[in-house]
Order: sequence, then structure tokens, then C-alpha cells
Amino acid sequence: MAPKRGPKTRSLPPSRPTRIVIERVRPEIDCGRHPIKRVVGEEVSVTADIHAEGHDRVAARLLHRSGPEADWSEAEMVPLGNDRWEARFAVEEIGSHEYTIEAWIDHFETWRSDLEKRVEAGEDVSVDLQIGAQLIEEAARRAGGAEERRMLRWANQLRSRRPVRADGRIRAALDEDRARRIAQHPERRWAARYERTLRVTVEPERARFSAWYELFPRSTAAEPGRHGTFRDVEARLPYVEEMGFDVLYLPPIHPIGRRHRKGPNGALEAGEEDPGSPWAIGGPEGGHREIHPELGSLKDFRRLVRKAEERGIAVALDIAFQCSPDHPYVREHPEWFRQRPDGTIQYAENPPKKYQDIYPFDFECEDWRGLWKELLEVVRHWIDQGVRIFRVDNPHTKPYAFWEWMIGEVRRTDPDVLFLSEAFTRPKVMARLAKVGFSQSYTYFTWRRTAWELRGYLADLTRTELAEYFRPNFWPNTPDILTEELQIGGRAAFMKRLVLAATLSASYGIYGPAFELCVGAPLRLGGEEYLDSEKYQIQDWDLDDPVSLRHLIARINRIRRSEPALQQNRDLRFLETTNDRLLAYAKGSRDPSGGTVVVVVNLEPEFTHSGYLTLPTEELGLEPGLPFQVHDLLTEARYLWHGGRNYVEVTSGAVPAHIFRIRRRTRTERDFDYYL
Amino acid sequence: MAPKRGPKTRSLPPSRPTRIVIERVRPEIDCGRHPIKRVVGEEVSVTADIHAEGHDRVAARLLHRSGPEADWSEAEMVPLGNDRWEARFAVEEIGSHEYTIEAWIDHFETWRSDLEKRVEAGEDVSVDLQIGAQLIEEAARRAGGAEERRMLRWANQLRSRRPVRADGRIRAALDEDRARRIAQHPERRWAARYERTLRVTVEPERARFSAWYELFPRSTAAEPGRHGTFRDVEARLPYVEEMGFDVLYLPPIHPIGRRHRKGPNGALEAGEEDPGSPWAIGGPEGGHREIHPELGSLKDFRRLVRKAEERGIAVALDIAFQCSPDHPYVREHPEWFRQRPDGTIQYAENPPKKYQDIYPFDFECEDWRGLWKELLEVVRHWIDQGVRIFRVDNPHTKPYAFWEWMIGEVRRTDPDVLFLSEAFTRPKVMARLAKVGFSQSYTYFTWRRTAWELRGYLADLTRTELAEYFRPNFWPNTPDILTEELQIGGRAAFMKRLVLAATLSASYGIYGPAFELCVGAPLRLGGEEYLDSEKYQIQDWDLDDPVSLRHLIARINRIRRSEPALQQNRDLRFLETTNDRLLAYAKGSRDPSGGTVVVVVNLEPEFTHSGYLTLPTEELGLEPGLPFQVHDLLTEARYLWHGGRNYVEVTSGAVPAHIFRIRRRTRTERDFDYYL
Repeated sequence: MAPKRGPKTRSLPPSRPTRIVIERVRPEIDCGRHPIKRVVGEEVSVTADIHAEGHDRVAARLLHRSGPEADWSEAEMVPLGNDRWEARFAVEEIGSHEYTIEAWIDHFETWRSDLEKRVEAGEDVSVDLQIGAQLIEEAARRAGGAEERRMLRWANQLRSRRPVRADGRIRAALDEDRARRIAQHPERRWAARYERTLRVTVEPERARFSAWYELFPRSTAAEPGRHGTFRDVEARLPYVEEMGFDVLYLPPIHPIGRRHRKGPNGALEAGEEDPGSPWAIGGPEGGHREIHPELGSLKDFRRLVRKAEERGIAVALDIAFQCSPDHPYVREHPEWFRQRPDGTIQYAENPPKKYQDIYPFDFECEDWRGLWKELLEVVRHWIDQGVRIFRVDNPHTKPYAFWEWMIGEVRRTDPDVLFLSEAFTRPKVMARLAKVGFSQSYTYFTWRRTAWELRGYLADLTRTELAEYFRPNFWPNTPDILTEELQIGGRAAFMKRLVLAATLSASYGIYGPAFELCVGAPLRLGGEEYLDSEKYQIQDWDLDDPVSLRHLIARINRIRRSEPALQQNRDLRFLETTNDRLLAYAKGSRDPSGGTVVVVVNLEPEFTHSGYLTLPTEELGLEPGLPFQVHDLLTEARYLWHGGRNYVEVTSGAVPAHIFRIRRRTRTERDFDYYL
Repeated sequence: MAPKRGPKTRSLPPSRPTRIVIERVRPEIDCGRHPIKRVVGEEVSVTADIHAEGHDRVAARLLHRSGPEADWSEAEMVPLGNDRWEARFAVEEIGSHEYTIEAWIDHFETWRSDLEKRVEAGEDVSVDLQIGAQLIEEAARRAGGAEERRMLRWANQLRSRRPVRADGRIRAALDEDRARRIAQHPERRWAARYERTLRVTVEPERARFSAWYELFPRSTAAEPGRHGTFRDVEARLPYVEEMGFDVLYLPPIHPIGRRHRKGPNGALEAGEEDPGSPWAIGGPEGGHREIHPELGSLKDFRRLVRKAEERGIAVALDIAFQCSPDHPYVREHPEWFRQRPDGTIQYAENPPKKYQDIYPFDFECEDWRGLWKELLEVVRHWIDQGVRIFRVDNPHTKPYAFWEWMIGEVRRTDPDVLFLSEAFTRPKVMARLAKVGFSQSYTYFTWRRTAWELRGYLADLTRTELAEYFRPNFWPNTPDILTEELQIGGRAAFMKRLVLAATLSASYGIYGPAFELCVGAPLRLGGEEYLDSEKYQIQDWDLDDPVSLRHLIARINRIRRSEPALQQNRDLRFLETTNDRLLAYAKGSRDPSGGTVVVVVNLEPEFTHSGYLTLPTEELGLEPGLPFQVHDLLTEARYLWHGGRNYVEVTSGAVPAHIFRIRRRTRTERDFDYYL
């Protein structure tokens, strides 16, 4: 059993190893391989297991800085119990931040707490006071200056050779103020530093809180049949602003290929007048850096970006890294595409599906460096035109390493630029794209309908590690996805999905005007394609159709702006109801003055549903025994509730939800009739 | 908002980054900082998230080797779904093993599965066959030899310029056998290698499965009052063997200090004849390398080790790294101890508790290297006398880094040596000691009594990451711990705790003969010290006292040896009963032929308890509708049960448990009356 012995060398480390262990630091994604994400002004709460052997006291500080070259700032960590410690820091600048932990044995505090016990036990502590004096003298030397002189005086007070059981010197030795001063000058020579430096990507607030509106510029003309232009989009800005959106996302605006152009409803043959899919990028007029002539000029585009900005709306551009057969790249850089043995270029496919109008890039080609750099330059080009947000088409069909490099390069010069990942694919792939840098991500929300599905999915998004790096953007519809629910549910289904998207997630978006006009006709039953999809043809929309949800959307976006609770996902929690068709959830500070919002959605809006809702009154900081007000921000109705269990009803026909703001009743006589 | 742009440098990696991601590899302790543990012959199941962007097929292999210099072996990983992959390997040698993962895009398999879909869709696949031929030719070049010639013939079969929709070449292209052969020669130039190499510490089987018996050698003399010797311990070996223990653990056997020697029941003053605590190590006769003269000689000790080994019993020695004031180190190496300002040496204390008979080492002293090396040499000294197991006293009062280094050094030359950590302290500290190398650990079992406590604690030990590195050793009593339960519960409580320890944990131990003689008298009520503790005085034990549990212990250890289910903790699961005083659990293979053991313990043995036990019959592989036999290994009673819900009763007065072996009834006529 016992193998032969090897040589008896005695490897000992060059210097004495630290006694302190720092482990299980959170947040930490894949051992620090990826940064966590925050927006400007947010806090990072860092926790860790920190301990040493034996009974010595430990002290720890969180180290953080606004980049690898900045000086470290420090925050004292406090013990949470069970050897877990915590500290927080706020990230005040856009860019990359770093954090790590340092911890050491606090010899003075160890001595002080032991002294306390000895004094209590009535021991002679004269020798202990001398040890304390030594420790204070050491701290004094580290402090220097006036503090050194002050501390040396304290040390002298403790020096004594006669037996001491209780006197002024002991009180001095145990003084808490002094202890705090001494703790400011710890011996950190043997401190442990956590082995990894962890990173935070800090982005503008819009990375967390945003309302997106997608439209096809070519369908914005005032006169039916005309191809819309950037000037027409400009004219549409007040409409978008009134609805309360702050991101206007445009599908690709580049020249569209001719060869294999698709016709209405995806027909394989396009007619002469058919405009083709904007995602078939590139024609004789140019490629990814050019503008489709019928939309206007680059100057018009820059003007649109500026005009939108004046209304607080950011224009988001589509990045679709693929080419039509007519794209200049195909001629100039055939090496960037995969050739088949018959000399043709491999078009996009997901067998047996074929996309003959689209050539994918070969990210593994010999000249991958040339290709990657060119694509980065494309993004830089549009950044130079004023674009700060990109919605990236199908990122899950391009290598993770490409995105990590490309987004990293952009962030190095333009750390405020945001990227939304349009990946509808396997969960691990979606998560990885978020890890490598995407600011926001499309989600499975589109297909989560029942209370059980929504609770489970939101728990994944807000209660797991995903919350640290995956920022969901909830879309009830997209030009590719008209769900069965919207096809059959009518206006009520649109309202319900709107409320869910806009209140479950701090970021959401709709593809309009199809959404607000409650367009529900599919190309074919069982599919999710729109009939007469704008992807292949120009649409004339009647924005004044009485079916329109524009006013409801405006109200909901107003509520989102006025309620900080709805601008984040971190503290989302679901509430119990006695009717599982009523999905209820709360968001917002547990302190009611901070603003708690409670949403109740009727998941089956074709019927009136009612039941009892259980509010966690203690968690919400509501005083037991006192009534409180719930204010329905959708209808302005106010209800006086009492206790945790209250009746709720959502009637069919109306907006299928309540968005309640909990308002605490004040208790001074002066405020008797008012609510805070 | 937008900060100023930095320089536009274009850092691109020197070679094209891999497309494959390998993440969330399990098991992995603290990002690979610590090894997992196994015993010889066990398996390691390694899982990981492995994926690339897009739809390409991925292939992955687990790499493993029996040390950093050995060649890698490979095991094919199989997909479990949701991009999770798994492979297993067995560790066949004691020592350090390593594992990691390599994965790559499987271009041939991607092509083959696409081809399948194209053929199904009735497409012309002539060009695809050419692509396939190319891929096979590449594999052929990598294969070389006869395989290359064979593969080139396959490739030729696919070459064709005329349209192909379905013929023999397609069948050849899709052939699974060929695909498997081709998969043996993948293109791994762009493979991803997981960034960490993870380690497994492989120990002898006893690290996992062991039954310990602790006794004080000085209390083993046949004649009352005489100081026992190693020869007396030798005479006790048959007794220990009959009870079925395989580790005999002796408290320190070194010379005992005189100064501040403690008297009976821990009295501060010892009488002339009082033997003192064996943990007050060191006297004029020597220190940690010497033997207490009254026990015998080093030769006697070696003989004891040998004699024990002949009976399959390993002698475990106590390592208590501390000194009595009379230890030679105190004179020869005063620099290894902490001096107080008054010139005295700091004795051990945990204020206000004082241990004047014990000086702790100062592991942070200037000559820490000298101290650490000497302590390693002490361990080596006893290894040279034949000791392969050490029970380490209070490891939580010495630095983690010391243990990691010391155990690592021992393992490098003697990888079969085991260390048991006697730390009763905070959970994170206990876990860290296991991480840095201890083979087994004392636990909180001693104080877990109710069903709720035991279920929760065992879930921690067997269902969390702890299971990978923390091997529990359950002790119902120790010389320091006589629990309240044993003080008041009488013989039934001893039986109950015995069954729990021996069946919940693959390793357990008792401190005897106090345990088997059901000694329950405490020094004082509310404390856990034994009255007239052997720590301070010699005891005469009447091993033939009719109260003795020696025969029950023997039976339980026999059951443990015959049932592999009880030799591991990995698959412990608790079962539902309708009476929460009946704790029920199952261990063992889910395949009933592999041997499932179900234990039912009466947690309140002063009363008869009964109820219904729910067996997960499907999980146990029991055929629905057929009766099966449960065989009580304690009483040899056999019961015929049917279905999942069965009545159980544990009567007061008898052994307060059933240890059932589930036996499946066979169904051939020949075996009609027999059970497998």
C-alpha cells in the first residue's frame, strides 16, 4: 500500500505565509474571468469569508479603484457573522473599476478584547498593560506626526510595574475612541491580499433603465406608398417622445442587396418595386458604412440623431454583420467568406433552412485579423456619427472572442457605448454573450406566459449570479416574433404583455407601430411571422386608429420614470395571491418612504379575476395595526388597506392590471388628512 | 456623459482565439486552489458547460493523469443536455492526480448532421459530398498508416461531380461506424483547453471508511492501580479486533510535564502520584520524539504497531503541537515561544481560561522555518516507527499555511499517511482545514440530535461542495465530550448514538471503554467533562460489565464491513416517516442488486415509536406490484413488504433501530422460495 518514498526536500516559502484566508468573494464571475456590471452611481456590495486560525481578531478592507492605474480607495469591511464580511462601494465613473480585499490580524483589538475578559475575571493585568503599551507604540510609529505623539502618551499611561486590577489606566486601555484611532494604523506587513483583482464594467444609467421603440424608417412617410426618410422619422419623434420612450431603434439603414432579394412575406422572388430586407446589407451604393439612398444622406442621419437627442431619445443602430451577395466586401474581400468546392460562396443556412440573400462572414478565415478590425471600424464609424447604442443582430452566430475583443476595444475609447444582444438561443450561450460584454440582452420573456413560468424565469434573472452581468430587455413583440398569445388575445393581451414587460423589467421595448396598433395577424397559423411583415415591404400605419395603446404606453412610461422602484430589477419579489391568474409582485425599497410599487396583473384578461393578495407588511415597513393607502397609478384610484391580506380584483375590459404605489399614512395630527 | 477618447490601439491576440468556451467545471474547489479528495479505485465525475457560438457540433475530452509528470489519458465527454457535458475517470493510485478538459469544433460531425437534414429535405448534395470528402482526407492525414489509406478510400467514394440526391455514397457518408473512426482523429489545432488544471488527492480506502477506537494506554493494565504499558495494549488488541475496529487511536504517548501538572478532575495542584494529562507533552525524559517511560520503550511501541497491523488494525497517534513547561524545546529553543514583557513564557489561554501546564508554539516567531521543519521531522519520526495515521489535536490553533505545507511535505514522500483534524470550531475554519489537506475531520455530529438537526447537517456534508473534500468522522463521545444526551439517556442513548454514527457516516469512532460501558457521569451538571476523567487519572475498567455494548458494536461493525452501502456517504438520502421521532435514511446503489440499506432510528428510545415509512420504490429499482423482502441485519428478522408505504415500529428496551437490507424477490420458478 505504501509507495516508495521520494526525496526529502523541504520547500518552504521565501517569506512567512499569511495566516489569513480570504475566500468565496462575491460577486465574482467564473473566478474573475468576467467583470460584473453596474451603472453609474450604483453600489457594489462585496462579501467574503475571511478568517484565520485561533481566536485572534481579524480586520479587513475592501480595496477599489476606478481603473488599473488609479490609486486604491479602501472601505472597512464589517463582519456579518459566521466569518462572512461585507463592505460596499459606489461606482461614480463610467468605465472599468476594480476591487479586491486585504485582511490582517488585528493584534491590538485581540489584546483589547482579551483584556476586557481578564478585567471582568478580576485578574492582575499589569503585564497585559505593558503588552498593550507596546502595541500602541508600534501603531504610533506607523502613524507618525501629531498622532504619534498622542499615541505615545496613551502608551505611557499604560506602563506600570505594580499590580493592576481596576483603575483609570484600564479604562484608558479599553477606551473605544482610542481603539478606533489606533485601528487606523494597522500593521499590514503580514496582510493577506485576495489572489484575484475583480472587475466592474460601469455603464451609463440607460444600460439598466430604458424604454425602446423599434420602427422601420421606410414606413414613416406621411403619404401612403412613399418610401420613408430620416426626415420622416424626425417628424415621428414627437409621437415617440409622447409615448415616453428614450431609445429609438432602427433596423439596418444601409443599402440593400438585389441578388436573391426577398419579396413580400419572404417570397423567394422579389418584384422590381419590392424594397427587400434591410438585413440583406450591401449593394452597388455601398455596404455597412453607407446609407440606403432612399432614406436620405449621412447628414440627414446625423441630424436625426441630434434631433432625437434634444428630446432625450437615443437612436440605436442595428449591427448585422452579414452581407448581401452585392456587398462591396464580397468583391473586395472574397477571403472573408467561405468558398464551397464549386467556387460559390457559402450563404447562410441552418439546414434545411436557406438564406440565399445573406452571406455570413467566415470569422475563422486566414485573414481573421483584417476582418475583425474592419468590423470594429464599422462600429467606430457609426459612433463617429453620434450613435451610442447598438442592437446587435444574431451575435450568437459570431465567436464570443470576437465580441469580447470588439466591445472591449470600443469601451476603451468610448466606455459609454451600449450594446444590446439580440440572441434568442440556448441559455448558456445567451449568458456567455452577456459575460463577454453586452450591456443588455433579449430574453425568453416573449414566451413566458403563466404565473409559474414568469416566477421561475424572473427568479433566474434576479436571484442568481445572472443578476450581476445579464441585464434583461423584455420585448412583447419584435418584427420576427408575433407570439401566439398576441395573435389570439386581442387588445387585452397586448395591454397585459405591455404591463408585464414594463414593470417586471427595468428595460423593455416594443416593435411599433405594430404593437400599439395591436396588430395580430400572422403569416400562417402556428408560426410567429407577421402577415405582410415590414421586413419585406413598406407599411402604412394609421397611428390614430382608436385601437391604439399609445396613451396607455405613455402613462406606463410616465409611471416608470416617476417610480425608482421600476428602474431596477434587483429587489423584485413575487407576492402570494389566492388566484393563480393574478400575478402579483413588488419592487422597490423595503422602506415605504423609498417607494414600493406592487403590480397585480390579470393573466387571463378575457375574464374578471379576483382574489386575496398577501402583502409582506413587515418587510414593507408598514406599521402593524395602522391602515395604509394603495394608490393605483394607472387609474388614480386610491384604496385604504389594513393588514397583509387584501382583496384585489382586475375586471375584464379595462387595463388588465393594477400598478399600486404603497403610501404610508402619517401619524401627526397636522397630516391627518394627507398622505406622504 | 461621454468621456474623452483614448488612443485607438488595436490589440489583437497573437493567434486566433478559440471559439469554444469551457466553464463551470465541477468539481472545482475555490477556482482550483484546493484539490478534491478520493480514495483509491473511486471515480471522479467531471461536468462542465461547453459550447461555441452558432450551430456547430462540439466534441470534448476529459484529460486526466496520475501526477504532473505523467502522460494525459483521455475520456470522451458526453452531452447531458443544456450544453452540460460529463466524463468520468477512476483514480487507481495513491497520490496526486490531475484533470482538465479539452474541447473543439467537430467539423465532420457538423457536416454529417447537416447532410442528414439536407438529404431528408431532398436537396442536391453533390457539393456537400465534396466538402465531406475534404474533411475525411484531412482526418486521414492526421490518422496516418493503414487508417489513412482506408479513410482516403472513403473520401474517394464521396467525390462526384454529378447531382446526387440519394444513393450508396450518401449512405456511406452517413455511416455511423465510419463517423466514429473519423472522430478518433479530430483537428485539435484550435481546441480550447480549460484554463486550470484541477487536482485530486487520492488516499487509501481507510480515508473514507474506518472505525476508530480510542483508549488510554495507561488504563489497560490487567491489575487495578498499575500503569498500563504498550504490552497491556497488545493484550487488549483481541478485544478491539472482536469489536471490529480498524483504527486504534492513542492519546499522546510522550513524557508528561511536571510543572503545573493537573490533578484528578483537572485540579490545579497534582499529587505526587498523579499521572498528569498526556497532552502536557515533554519532561526531563524528552519531548515529542520520546516515549513516556512508564508505557515502555520505542521498541515496544513498534511491536504494538506491528501486532495491531497483523489484526488489520492501524495504530493512530496523537499529534499535539504544544509543550509542557518542562519540554526540552523550552530550554533549547526559547525563540519558538512567545515571551511576555515580564520575561515569562506565554502559556495557552482563551481568556479568561488558562492552561498553565501548556505552552503553545509561536508559529509567527522569527525562526518560524526552524520550528516548522522540526515539527515536520517529528511527524516523519513517527512515520519511521510505522505510524500511518495521525489524529491532530486542535489544528485550528495553528496556521492553515503550516498544515498545508506540512501535510503536503509528508504526502510527497508518504502519500498513504492520513490525518484526522480534531477541530471543534467555526464551520469555515473546519472546512479550510479539510481543504488544506486533512483526510478526515471531527464534526458537529456530537451535538446534532433531532431529526431536523441531523437532516440539515448531513445535507451540508453530503449534498454541498463539502462532500468533495471534507470527510466526516462521527464521534458520539470523546475524552473531552460527554454530551448531555449520554449523561441522561442511559444505555439506550449510547445504542442510538452508536447506530447513528456508524450508519450515517462511513467513518466513526468511540472513546472506550467509557463508551461501550455506557459511562455517563459528568464532572458537573451542565458541563461535558467526564467525572474522574482519564485525562488526569488512570481508570480501571471492567470490560465484562453486563452493561457493555461490545457485542452490539461488533455486530454493527460486521454489518458495516459486509454492506458497501455503509462504506460511503455520497448517496445518503433521508426518507419520509409519519413519526418525526423515527429518523429513516437509505444508503447504497439505486440498483437493488447493488445493496441498498435502509436505517430507521428511534430518536426517543425510552418510548416505543411507530409510524409509516415511505420507500422510494422506483428509485430503489423495486418492481411495482411485486413484494420484496427487508432483512433486519441487527436482529436477522425478515419482513415481506409491498409498495412504498410500510409500517415500522421500534420498541423501547431493544436496540433502538432497524438496519434493513432491501432484498429483491427473484421471479424465476427455480428461485421461488429464495431471495437474492
